[in-house]
Amino acid sequence: MGALRLPSLSLLRPTFLPLRRLPPLSVGRATTHSLAKEAEAVTAGDGKASVSPSQQENSVTPRSVDFSAWYLDVIANAELADYGPVRGTMVIRPYGYAIWEAIQDYLNVKFKETGHSNMYFPQFIPYSFIEKEASHVEGFSPELAVVTIGGGKELEEKLVVRPTSETIVNHMFTQWIHSYRDLPLMVNQWANVTRWEMRTKPFVRTLEFLWQEGHTAHATFEEAEKEALQMINIYKDFAYEHAAIPVITGRKSKVETFAGAACTYTIEAMMGDKRALQAGTSHNLGQNFSRAFGTQFMDENGYRQHVWQTSWAISTRFVGGIIMTHGDDTGLMLPPRIAPIQVVIVPIWKKSDERTSILEAVATVQNILKEAGIRVKVDDSEQRTPGWKYNFWEMKGVPLRIEIGPRDVTNKSVVVSRRDVPGKPGKEFGVSMEASTLVNHVKIRLEEIQAALLQRAISFRDSNIVDVNSYGELKEAIAEGKWARGPWSASDAEELKVKEETSATIRCFPFEQPEGEKKCFMTGKPAEEVAIFAKSY
Amino acid sequence: MGALRLPSLSLLRPTFLPLRRLPPLSVGRATTHSLAKEAEAVTAGDGKASVSPSQQENSVTPRSVDFSAWYLDVIANAELADYGPVRGTMVIRPYGYAIWEAIQDYLNVKFKETGHSNMYFPQFIPYSFIEKEASHVEGFSPELAVVTIGGGKELEEKLVVRPTSETIVNHMFTQWIHSYRDLPLMVNQWANVTRWEMRTKPFVRTLEFLWQEGHTAHATFEEAEKEALQMINIYKDFAYEHAAIPVITGRKSKVETFAGAACTYTIEAMMGDKRALQAGTSHNLGQNFSRAFGTQFMDENGYRQHVWQTSWAISTRFVGGIIMTHGDDTGLMLPPRIAPIQVVIVPIWKKSDERTSILEAVATVQNILKEAGIRVKVDDSEQRTPGWKYNFWEMKGVPLRIEIGPRDVTNKSVVVSRRDVPGKPGKEFGVSMEASTLVNHVKIRLEEIQAALLQRAISFRDSNIVDVNSYGELKEAIAEGKWARGPWSASDAEELKVKEETSATIRCFPFEQPEGEKKCFMTGKPAEEVAIFAKSY
Repeated sequence: MGALRLPSLSLLRPTFLPLRRLPPLSVGRATTHSLAKEAEAVTAGDGKASVSPSQQENSVTPRSVDFSAWYLDVIANAELADYGPVRGTMVIRPYGYAIWEAIQDYLNVKFKETGHSNMYFPQFIPYSFIEKEASHVEGFSPELAVVTIGGGKELEEKLVVRPTSETIVNHMFTQWIHSYRDLPLMVNQWANVTRWEMRTKPFVRTLEFLWQEGHTAHATFEEAEKEALQMINIYKDFAYEHAAIPVITGRKSKVETFAGAACTYTIEAMMGDKRALQAGTSHNLGQNFSRAFGTQFMDENGYRQHVWQTSWAISTRFVGGIIMTHGDDTGLMLPPRIAPIQVVIVPIWKKSDERTSILEAVATVQNILKEAGIRVKVDDSEQRTPGWKYNFWEMKGVPLRIEIGPRDVTNKSVVVSRRDVPGKPGKEFGVSMEASTLVNHVKIRLEEIQAALLQRAISFRDSNIVDVNSYGELKEAIAEGKWARGPWSASDAEELKVKEETSATIRCFPFEQPEGEKKCFMTGKPAEEVAIFAKSY
Repeated sequence: MGALRLPSLSLLRPTFLPLRRLPPLSVGRATTHSLAKEAEAVTAGDGKASVSPSQQENSVTPRSVDFSAWYLDVIANAELADYGPVRGTMVIRPYGYAIWEAIQDYLNVKFKETGHSNMYFPQFIPYSFIEKEASHVEGFSPELAVVTIGGGKELEEKLVVRPTSETIVNHMFTQWIHSYRDLPLMVNQWANVTRWEMRTKPFVRTLEFLWQEGHTAHATFEEAEKEALQMINIYKDFAYEHAAIPVITGRKSKVETFAGAACTYTIEAMMGDKRALQAGTSHNLGQNFSRAFGTQFMDENGYRQHVWQTSWAISTRFVGGIIMTHGDDTGLMLPPRIAPIQVVIVPIWKKSDERTSILEAVATVQNILKEAGIRVKVDDSEQRTPGWKYNFWEMKGVPLRIEIGPRDVTNKSVVVSRRDVPGKPGKEFGVSMEASTLVNHVKIRLEEIQAALLQRAISFRDSNIVDVNSYGELKEAIAEGKWARGPWSASDAEELKVKEETSATIRCFPFEQPEGEKKCFMTGKPAEEVAIFAKSY
């Protein structure tokens, strides 16, 4: 219920401060940076309300003090999301939704390039469908939302609000698939899904969330396997190249496999608190659902066969992964390729006669960048000081800031500040306003930031994965909050014991495996692979 | 529940016909057209199954015989949608969904250009919210789907699956709106909604449907009014310029106004059977919801005021409107601007040694069109005759077909056929393959088709609206299945009497009004406006 820990708007905006009474609080370029870092008091003209950047800065709990509180503070203050009125639900606000749209835009193109069509399946599923695949019902029945009343009447058959769509997809596939020539059938939908989770957290785990779910049917196991691997690799590429999240790609253990799948592939991301986030999965469903639903085709030799299937999904949880990978004590930090705003321009003037020429320069720079395809925003509101704006847009994680003051206009130059490099080292003075020079400069900086965020995340990840050769070493690594990687060929029961004793689970058997012979750190028996253990969201 | 009236795939595809045994059924260019129109038998090599274009053609009930059956046949055979397993639900298949995506792509850009941000509100709404606005609960309570069980437990408060989001939007707006500086607040969401309709029809009225719903809050009535009008005009422009549907824009009568709105604007489209389809609405909500939810702001003078709101929506129903406006006995007919495939290329060869050069020419033409931004598809499957393909893609409403046979390759030319002009008059031979000539030709033809569809729909509409000056005349016009337009200033009770006696309702008071004095055709009293009456979907 209610708002997030800290209501962002009421803190960040002196709400009842009439525009016309506000003194023109503006500062010269030279002093701007230090002002932004100081506690600069903004006094309300009518005394009704006031806010200071120090309040503004203090509104985010430091990551090191309480990661979870930091996360909620960033979501509130960067205006990413709010709690909905129903427990565990979330309202995705425009800025948060724009990040989701960036994810959608990229993946939608990739899905179509690889031969998938978008479509839409209804969200209401007859309860009996869920019961058809044994492990599926076991996995999902505790989490279901159930519609029992429709149009004022008790329904004869209860309807499940989809937690995922494999059952209804198979029901329809049986009507569309007849011969091998109808295969492969490759579809995707962007939709909302509902899982009645008890412990929720914005973006990471909510009662209702948005996702895409791909569903495919193939004539052979090999084709389905190839598809499942292709899709997890598309997720991996997106994570690395656009979200700057160096996920580890691998196979889930049997215990952690999706309810109904033969095999689950996953991308696992290390968050800023070192906990793992399962950021996307791709399942080879084998013939589990096609046998339960009778989804068959006539092969080239005239024999009826069950289809081989996959399903794969990425959800709004990924937005949580972006926040928790890159954010810092100043707030959100967005990789340029998925940032809704890549560059914010802040005009700075002392005297009102400087205003016109500065706003003209700002408009020119804005157009230059816009035409170059850069996502740019001008913050020319007059109720806020430049220092306040710096903090606000840093909180929102905008990768680059351009400052334009009187001296810049005279010199036909701008000041460019990087979000990822605090203070002077991240600031460049005297960058020419000349179109091609400026565009080139900004594009190079954005690429540098993109690369720097990824590199930083890789270093962080690699310095927090410990190779272990005994259960003791694993316990130690997990107790330190790190990920443990070690050879594993023990039983499901032993895997569950590790979970019970350390709270860590097998995140995956990574595709990238060390060479050489391995012995299971738990049993001492030969092991084919190393597994990665970690506490997770 | 099962499939639509005629299962499309089983009829259209000889399902168990092995590829390798199929004789190469191809025909020369010169004879193609007549073949496509003849009953050309395709004999299956193994005798297991067979299909003929006559079967194919007969699978659509003629529009004139039974419009409703025709509609369902087109949806099934053009593979637009299928029934879901739950009564009244619909699966939107890739081809139907692609039309919806074309609608989304256009509107999404327009919404953003006019200052709206996308976001997402949860679909579960506490039951108590719905009850807060008196006319809203009256309008929607009979249509609600209600979740009573979550996570295996009976819920303390029942949850409504959103039928529309004004209530939850206002609940959130109260947290985000404080001062006049937070206004206007202008958001939109693309989402699914649920209304427990008793009589359903694919696209037109389904239990669950997809839509966008815009929600805005303003400081004054005038601003809200301007916004509501702006959005209905965006819908109107889309309908005319992209969907080639000459909607009539106007204001709803009080009786027909949205439950909770002060005023509803609408676009009304005339379907092929002359029934009206409400294709989009925009509501000036006044302060009805803001008073019910306490959505207030502090104005510039320091006084607390309730915000003035709008909401506006277009849904997947619009896809039904496109089908029923342009389709003919051959199937779907899509306006080029929203057609997922604008041009289909069909290669034609008699001898297998012609195959290579023809497929090379086809690939060249495909690339030329693709690079020019034209949505093009090649149907080079070898199991089908050109005649079968002609029928299939005509059924799917593809605006232009390009045929390439041996003589075309020799002459470096193609044959271009228009979907909207049957037979020889719609066919052009010897169109040069040279890139700029071909692109230019295709672009001009597509624009001509776009314009022709609109013009045809305008003529149809205008020849089926009758100006009436008495109730008798209205009854006559409605009995003929036409729309009646006449001066109206009578009471709500009299409006309901017309509905009871004729099944016609006031579709709108059109914005375009005839000049001069008017007298209500029902009461003889002075009337400000003419109203349009029609039977509707």
